[in-house]
Amino acid sequence: MTDEATMKAAMQAYVDAFNRSDAAGIADLFADDATVEDPVGSPLKSGKAAIADFYKMAVATGARLELAAPIRASHGNAAAMAFNVRLNMPEGKAHIQVIDVMTFNEAGKFASMKAYWGKSDMVLEK
Amino acid sequence: MTDEATMKAAMQAYVDAFNRSDAAGIADLFADDATVEDPVGSPLKSGKAAIADFYKMAVATGARLELAAPIRASHGNAAAMAFNVRLNMPEGKAHIQVIDVMTFNEAGKFASMKAYWGKSDMVLEK
Repeated sequence: MTDEATMKAAMQAYVDAFNRSDAAGIADLFADDATVEDPVGSPLKSGKAAIADFYKMAVATGARLELAAPIRASHGNAAAMAFNVRLNMPEGKAHIQVIDVMTFNEAGKFASMKAYWGKSDMVLEK
Repeated sequence: MTDEATMKAAMQAYVDAFNRSDAAGIADLFADDATVEDPVGSPLKSGKAAIADFYKMAVATGARLELAAPIRASHGNAAAMAFNVRLNMPEGKAHIQVIDVMTFNEAGKFASMKAYWGKSDMVLEK
């Protein structure tokens, strides 16, 4: 099982890679057969190629991730984190309130990612 | 599908009932066939009776829940929230950093609850 410190370090590495606009660095954190559901309730992206494409688009927005509270681990192969996605919209500065849950494979790579956020979690700041 | 406002209100009702030490009020938020995995990686509690027993023990500790960030919804039947569980340990004040993810049935009751926290999320405050 992946230990708590390793899982938390991978979650932090995800935030850091995103904030460097490093889509390849994000994709490297995922297992080859991983899945991404972002937001929860939307179609799954499956496999490293689809996931790499998704993050290329995501970082191209210039969005930045800011943890809202310390990253949580678990007693299993899963960890979770609450953060804000800061972005510039045509209407002004905005953020999306998100919680990501990642599960891990035995190699310490993300096996799945689920991003919990709804329309009501998008906040226009002015 | 349960709308975002209804899901967020149920999450807030869970926090409020916990903070009134109202175990029956918490149990009422769950479907009859719901499951609870707290912490993630521990055996499932299944069904309302087991869940009611679990929350009777939980509120008897005198613990209090404090949101660490706004509750998140999703585009599906799920919502998530980051909070701290504040409690008094023999060693002093402490808190546990937790993220709960709830899924909802069509009646707006919790179908499942998963609590993400590990040993590294228990913080002794002094």
